[in-house]
This record gives sequence, C-alpha cells and structure tokens, in this order.
Amino acid sequence: MAIIVQKYGGSSVANAGKIRNVARRIADCFDKGNQVVTVVSAMGDTTDELLELAAQVNQDPEPREMDLLLSTGEIVSSTLLAMALHATGYKAIALTGPQAGISTDSSFSRARITGIEPKRILRELDKGNIVIVAGFQGLNSDNDITTLGRGGSDTTAVALAASLKAKVCEIYTDVEGVYTADPRLVPGAVKLDEIGYEEMLEMATSGARVMHHRAVELGQIYNIPILVASSMIDKPGTLIHGGKDMEVRNKVRGIAHDMDVAKITITGVPDRPGIAASIFTPLAKAGISVDTIVQNASSNNITDLTFTVVKSDLTSAMKIIKPVAKKIKARECISDSGLGKVSIIGTGMQNAPGYAARMFETLYNQGINILLITTSEIRITCIIKESEVEKAVRALHKAFKLDKAA
Amino acid sequence: MAIIVQKYGGSSVANAGKIRNVARRIADCFDKGNQVVTVVSAMGDTTDELLELAAQVNQDPEPREMDLLLSTGEIVSSTLLAMALHATGYKAIALTGPQAGISTDSSFSRARITGIEPKRILRELDKGNIVIVAGFQGLNSDNDITTLGRGGSDTTAVALAASLKAKVCEIYTDVEGVYTADPRLVPGAVKLDEIGYEEMLEMATSGARVMHHRAVELGQIYNIPILVASSMIDKPGTLIHGGKDMEVRNKVRGIAHDMDVAKITITGVPDRPGIAASIFTPLAKAGISVDTIVQNASSNNITDLTFTVVKSDLTSAMKIIKPVAKKIKARECISDSGLGKVSIIGTGMQNAPGYAARMFETLYNQGINILLITTSEIRITCIIKESEVEKAVRALHKAFKLDKAA
Repeated sequence: MAIIVQKYGGSSVANAGKIRNVARRIADCFDKGNQVVTVVSAMGDTTDELLELAAQVNQDPEPREMDLLLSTGEIVSSTLLAMALHATGYKAIALTGPQAGISTDSSFSRARITGIEPKRILRELDKGNIVIVAGFQGLNSDNDITTLGRGGSDTTAVALAASLKAKVCEIYTDVEGVYTADPRLVPGAVKLDEIGYEEMLEMATSGARVMHHRAVELGQIYNIPILVASSMIDKPGTLIHGGKDMEVRNKVRGIAHDMDVAKITITGVPDRPGIAASIFTPLAKAGISVDTIVQNASSNNITDLTFTVVKSDLTSAMKIIKPVAKKIKARECISDSGLGKVSIIGTGMQNAPGYAARMFETLYNQGINILLITTSEIRITCIIKESEVEKAVRALHKAFKLDKAA
Repeated sequence: MAIIVQKYGGSSVANAGKIRNVARRIADCFDKGNQVVTVVSAMGDTTDELLELAAQVNQDPEPREMDLLLSTGEIVSSTLLAMALHATGYKAIALTGPQAGISTDSSFSRARITGIEPKRILRELDKGNIVIVAGFQGLNSDNDITTLGRGGSDTTAVALAASLKAKVCEIYTDVEGVYTADPRLVPGAVKLDEIGYEEMLEMATSGARVMHHRAVELGQIYNIPILVASSMIDKPGTLIHGGKDMEVRNKVRGIAHDMDVAKITITGVPDRPGIAASIFTPLAKAGISVDTIVQNASSNNITDLTFTVVKSDLTSAMKIIKPVAKKIKARECISDSGLGKVSIIGTGMQNAPGYAARMFETLYNQGINILLITTSEIRITCIIKESEVEKAVRALHKAFKLDKAA
C-alpha cells in the first residue's frame, strides 16, 4: 500500500464546515487504498489571535514561550480533523509534532528539522488509522516545543513524506497550483502542469507565495514529488518534481514578483577586506535577512554597496547600519522603501542567450527604470519601483509568450 | 529555600489584565525568598469554547482526541503567565504537564496521576526560574496526552507539592476560603481559619464547590498543608491540614449542600446475593457515578433499593436500569429529579450523641420532609426536596451556632 502525505493550510480548516470538507477529501484518498498521513496548519486566524494575546501581556515575548503558545493552534486543528473523520466512521488519530517523532534544533520560532522517528506513525498506519499530524512544530533535545517558522507546515509535510518514503506529498492550498505569474496581476496567467524543483525554488524565493522554499529544498534533496493543488475544487494542480526533461527545456517558465522590498545603499565604502562582514554580521545577529546584495566596481578603493531587506526590517536595519557606516568611514546611508522586484525563471536560460536582453528591452519599452539586477543560473531579477511591478509582470508574461504555456 | 506551589483557577486568568495581576502575586511570593511553582487552569471560558468547537464536527468525540484538544487551554494560559512574568523582569518558564514530569493512567478525560518525575522542575528552580505548569494534564505510557477531569488543576498542584516536598500548596480561587456554609445562601456564614482533611473531604463530596475531593485526598495522604484563599484580595484564607487538635474538636464545622440530586428507586427487588452487582455494574460501565445508596430491610426476601445520581445522568441511568429491573423481576423503577441534599460535617460527631437528633428536629421544625438519610463517621446527610435546601441550610447553620465559628 502506498503512503500519501497531504497538507492542508489554515484557510482550508478555518471553520467546522471546512474541516468536515477536508475530512471528506482525506477519506476519499483513504478509500482509494492509500495509507494517509495529513499535516494540518492552525485554523484561519488562530495564530494571529494568539500573537495578539501574547502582545497584551508582553511586547517582546521570549521565543521559547511563544513557540509553546503557537504550537497549540495546530494541535486544536489536528484533533478537530481527527474528530470529523471519526464522525464519518473513519479510524483516525491526531498526533502532535513531538508525538509524530519530529526533532528539531533549538532555534525557537524558526527551528530546523534535525530528524524524524516515524515509528509511531507507522504503527498507527498499520492499525488502519488515518494519521493527522499537527504541522509547524517539533521537539528539541531539551524536550521543549519549537516551531518551524514561515511555511512550517509545508516543511513538516515534505519531511514526513521523505521519512515515510511516501509516493507523493500533496500540498492543498487556496490556489489551484503554480502559475506562470500571479493570476491576480496577469489575467492570462496559465497554471503549470509540472515544474522542476530548481525552478520552483527560484519562484518561491523570488516572491511566489504558493510554497515556502524550505519545503521545496527538502523535496529536492529526498526526491519527493510535491503536488500543489486546491483544497476546494477537484483539479489536477501542479506537480513539482525532478524529471529528466527538466534540464533541457530551455524556456522561461514563470514570472515571479515581490512587492515587499526596501533598499539600503552605503556610499563611499572603503574597499578593503572584512568590510562586507563588518556590515552584514550585525544584521544577521539581529535576525534581519538580507536578500539581494550588489557591490559596484571599485574606483580609488572606494565603492558603493547596496542591499535589500523586507520593508518591516528597514527601520531596525538602518539603526544598525548607521553607526557601522560611520565607524568604517563610509560617506552616507540612503534608504528607499517603495520598491519591488520582478524575476523571470526557467532552467537552461544561461545557455540560451537573449533572455536577459529581452527582459531589459521589455522593461525599457514600458518606461520602467531598473535599479538593481541580479541573476542565478535559472533566474534574472530586476529591482524596480513598487508602483511599476504590476505593469512589468504583465509585459514580461506577454513578451515570453507565457499565456501559451503549460 | 522553601518551595511553595500555587494554583490559580480559570477565572483568575480570564484576560490579560487578570494574568498580569496573577504574575504580580507570584512575583511577590518569589521576592519573599521562596522557590515558586505555579499551576494554572485554562483562561475563563476556553474549555467551553473548545468543547463547542468539537461538538461542531462530532457530537460524540473520542476521549483521546478530546483530551489532546482540551490540554491546549492550559498550555495557552501557562505561556501567557510566563510571558507576563518576563515582562516585569522575572525569570520564568512554562511547562506542559508532560514536561513537568506528570505521568497518568490511560483513562482519558478522568486520568489519575500515577507518578511525578520532578527533575525538570527542580532544574529550572535551581536556575532561578519561577516554574509555571499547565494544570489538568499528564502523559500516559503510550506517550498520549490525558486530562485529569473535574478539579484536575487542584490535583496537579497538590501532587506537585507532594513530589517537590513543598512547604504548602496554595489554591487561589474566586472565594476567600472555606465557609461554614455557602455565603450566597447563608448571610451569616463564617470563613474558617482552618479545617481538617477529613472534614474538608466530606465538605467537598457533599457539594461544597471550593475544592475537588481528589486534591484533598492527595493532600491528606502526603500531609501537604493546603491553603484556600482569594486570588483577588489579600486575606488569610482557610488552611486545610491534619493538626492533632483536629481529632477532638467534637463540633459541627460546616453545612454543605448540593442541588444536583436525582433519585431512582427500584421496588420489589428479590433479595438475593449478586442483585446489587447486577444493578450497579452496568451503571459503572456507562461511567455513571452513583452517590448515596440505601437498601431497606428486607421482608419476605423482597426489598426496595434507592440510589442517587446527578440530574444530567438520570435519563441514561433509567435507560440502563429499566431492562435490568425487568430481568431480575423487580416490581418497578421510580425516578425523582427535583432533589437536593444537605449535610452537617465535623470530626468527633460520632462520639457525641445528639447531633443527628438536633439535625432531624431542626428540619422537622421547618416542615421539611427527609427522603433519605446517610451517615459517615464525620457527616450526616439528608436528601430533601430541592426547593427546601436553602431553608434547611439556613436553619441548620443557626441551630449549630455556626455564625459564631472560626
């Protein structure tokens, strides 16, 4: 019998009616002869409500207690889902992350899974149970509850699929799959039937909200096919996998965008070894993620350094960077928060010239100024004004003929 | 340094303001040089809200999933309380029941504590932490979460106090202590400064709502002094203990009452061995607690058997008893749900005649008819009409001069 791991997000289990609907979908999968392990997020706004409660007693709560608090949200939804399955005559059991054997490191609020001991899950499957696992959580070596941070339940699902050697990991969400661009921005956006791990990773890190990149990375490492599909309607969705034909497709697969970009430029930076570390180490220590980093060619051993952060981190990043800039005798710090980024993504792009040129030309024709450019093997990203992102995505989608994709 | 265990009930932590208030009280106890372990119940109506959620997906949920669901309520309040302590500069750590080392049997929804491994708590106390423990829950030998049922957090507190060899277990609640009678019924009721374990046990099982009898039992077994006091105002409360002078007090200490009484009488029961078992075994299997049982003297090997249950169990008890009555060839089953009970309680009563007589006389003078009488070493209970309970409590309180007690 094949094991299938499913994951349902918070909006799919937001109330009793939706939980009953998810129970029906799980039962259907079980009735087809599969062993089913379902990972579930907290119901709808539960996590926000718990955060609000915490803020009422402490503006800056300890991460350990916060993780223990937040972990209750997924326990509630997992037990309700098991109860809904019982009500329709199915055998099911709800397990917390620790009961499911999920071990993590001790980085509260953004813990990494360090191992999975699937004994209990396998025993319950053998008893004929559908196993419902509370997502987003695990246990560290001190016997404390941790949470996995953004996209945590997706990561739980893919990690369980890997450890259980599941046939597929199905991520059910409020979109129908992975699109060539955000359908809210581009009416002609097309759902992809399949996409490679690498491409999906670039989509995820470039702003596509469908899945968190950590889960995709795990899928790639353990070669677990991941199906992204709607939890509401029965349509095929998008299969993320590592099939051979991926390598040579030689084609732009999608346009990703992100409106949440702020930029900091330090001008007149003395160009000597150790300077980059002196700037980025304090940011890392403060838990601020830096996205794009660009350093201009140095002239007279003086250079300009530009990097981007999410908008909500801009104020604290500037507070950290200003004294550092003074100390290293840089000229000044300039910030700009009204930015966005747009990326074209596809394997094989590096071997086929002309993609970058077509991208820049398309933006130029729209009168869009490019502020920063970065590239990877399968991605080209331009930082532009936030107000021009929508126009850029539409123009690029058309220029690369993605309305004819699939 | 002395260890003090405190317990706060759900109404004491019903919102952020009340949680901050409890944090202040805990901090005060810590500042006096004590090591403090605090057990906390779920916030206000949390448990009812979770029960309502469960009912929306399953009218008859599995106890295992129900316990896992309900256990989240105490985790939420314990983490918030730890966060509130952090906010005022105190070191504190929230522990779930399992993290606190509480093992139970597997009777979901009414589990018994089978052992406590206090290593983690002691380690945290040694680090200078105030330890906040989620009440009402433990872990069975299958690594599943259980809940302790009614009065569970009181039981957690007393059991922890025993295992930690605490100086005292302080139960903070919405009343100021143990009274000679319910102050809502008897305006002249007096708060007792102290009471013996036995007396408190009889008060608890006879309807006084201050503390659950399981917690009192545990306190007695391990000889842990239990202080019952208000969580809102600073007043001394009532100390439950086993001091020597308890034995010879020879005095009625309090009047307890209970409005939640229903009675079932089986008439014409053939009086032969095994009959009682055939009646009460099916009730026990259905989880129905039988309180008072009275069997009249047999004549011609035919007897009448009367017992009481809580009102909410009457319908299901009758459903079980009717076919049994038929099978054993009893005459009929009669039920009456409009009943209550009133008890006088005090050590030494059995050695001092006249208490029972004075009780019956007092009720007679009020025109109250006694339907059933039961006695223990330190208690006399009369089942009467529910509508007459209030009048009976007031008259007995006066007759035994309890308004002059303390």
